[in-house]
Amino acid sequence: MAKDMTLLWGSGSPPCWRVMIVLEEKNLQGYNSKRLYFEKGEHKGPEVMKINPRGQLPAFQHGNIIINESIGICQYLEDRYKGQGTKLVPEDCAEKAMMIQRMHEGNSLMMKAVDVIYYNFKVPEAERHESALQRNKEALTVEVKLWEDYLTKSKGQYLVGKDFTLADAVIYPVIAYLFAKELCEKKYPKLAEYNKNLKTRPSIQKTWPPAWFSPPGLVALNEI
Amino acid sequence: MAKDMTLLWGSGSPPCWRVMIVLEEKNLQGYNSKRLYFEKGEHKGPEVMKINPRGQLPAFQHGNIIINESIGICQYLEDRYKGQGTKLVPEDCAEKAMMIQRMHEGNSLMMKAVDVIYYNFKVPEAERHESALQRNKEALTVEVKLWEDYLTKSKGQYLVGKDFTLADAVIYPVIAYLFAKELCEKKYPKLAEYNKNLKTRPSIQKTWPPAWFSPPGLVALNEI
Repeated sequence: MAKDMTLLWGSGSPPCWRVMIVLEEKNLQGYNSKRLYFEKGEHKGPEVMKINPRGQLPAFQHGNIIINESIGICQYLEDRYKGQGTKLVPEDCAEKAMMIQRMHEGNSLMMKAVDVIYYNFKVPEAERHESALQRNKEALTVEVKLWEDYLTKSKGQYLVGKDFTLADAVIYPVIAYLFAKELCEKKYPKLAEYNKNLKTRPSIQKTWPPAWFSPPGLVALNEI
Repeated sequence: MAKDMTLLWGSGSPPCWRVMIVLEEKNLQGYNSKRLYFEKGEHKGPEVMKINPRGQLPAFQHGNIIINESIGICQYLEDRYKGQGTKLVPEDCAEKAMMIQRMHEGNSLMMKAVDVIYYNFKVPEAERHESALQRNKEALTVEVKLWEDYLTKSKGQYLVGKDFTLADAVIYPVIAYLFAKELCEKKYPKLAEYNKNLKTRPSIQKTWPPAWFSPPGLVALNEI
């Protein structure tokens, strides 16, 4: 039981979701889980700002330890609870290096997805340009192809071979998010298969977002 | 000696520089070090693309292992050479958590700095808006204040107390870069002190960028 842990999260946010997956994988159930609502601006409220001064979710506290960067939380939990639950770091040096690489590359995938999906949401109307959105779409297409390629070359069904690692906990929520935002399954068969296969994994099933944040003006990914 | 390692780097790039600092700290001298030139577009050349398909520097190879995400390379080197050179990860749980947090937050600082400094370089002329640049400057100001605050609250001269850690290796190059781009020392006295104190650290002195990438149109940080 993890009663000394508190996670503030928003539904449909891949950074929040990856932390929830790792908490499940490490058998850290029973933490204080509080869902906040982006649509009400609760991520900018005092409860979050106290823990995460950037006003972002997740916001995570373990006793006196505060750690908010989502990939950092995943690393912290795995390191702190090495012998508990699923072992999320490979023993093999080369696999471990690849896991580290993929995990950090998650930032690139996430950022490029946000630059497309939230274009109208983030850029004030007077500053929007079709050419900019088009460029963002092209950058995301190149990025998504990279990940399709990584899975094609993997020696197993996961990002780093035959075992589920931190890399999957970090990346899977972004992949699921892309498909929720209409990424084409036919164009990216390996990613689609990965998305489908991992859906039934207990840690993922249990933490599946109750809703996706969908304000008006979101850009769908069907052209990617 | 680290003859089985190759680092492709560009001068004045904080992500490249942090890797060079860690290589020094871990006594991994003697690696194949090759400086490439952003101004000649060499980061998009075949030598880089083979190792790093995003066409970014650093590009790093150790034997058959390829790892390009700069913070990831730092973590990999520390993990692989735990008992060699400077120990860059604190023993204490809370300090280690803070180190992980600060290290990942480095992405936020770097990204916000780039959004200002390279605004004219990254955004085509027809898409530029003074209001957007102003917003980027405000976001960077909030961010830089956070780091001034972190150092004010630190129990030592480093980001996580009394010892130089991976967090410093990751963040210092960004701080030095901000001052090289005219961040005001009087507005941020703690950051200025940190910048000055660490300048003489051997790993930093030895890897100091021979030049800063300075194409026309860069935005100086004197208003931040």
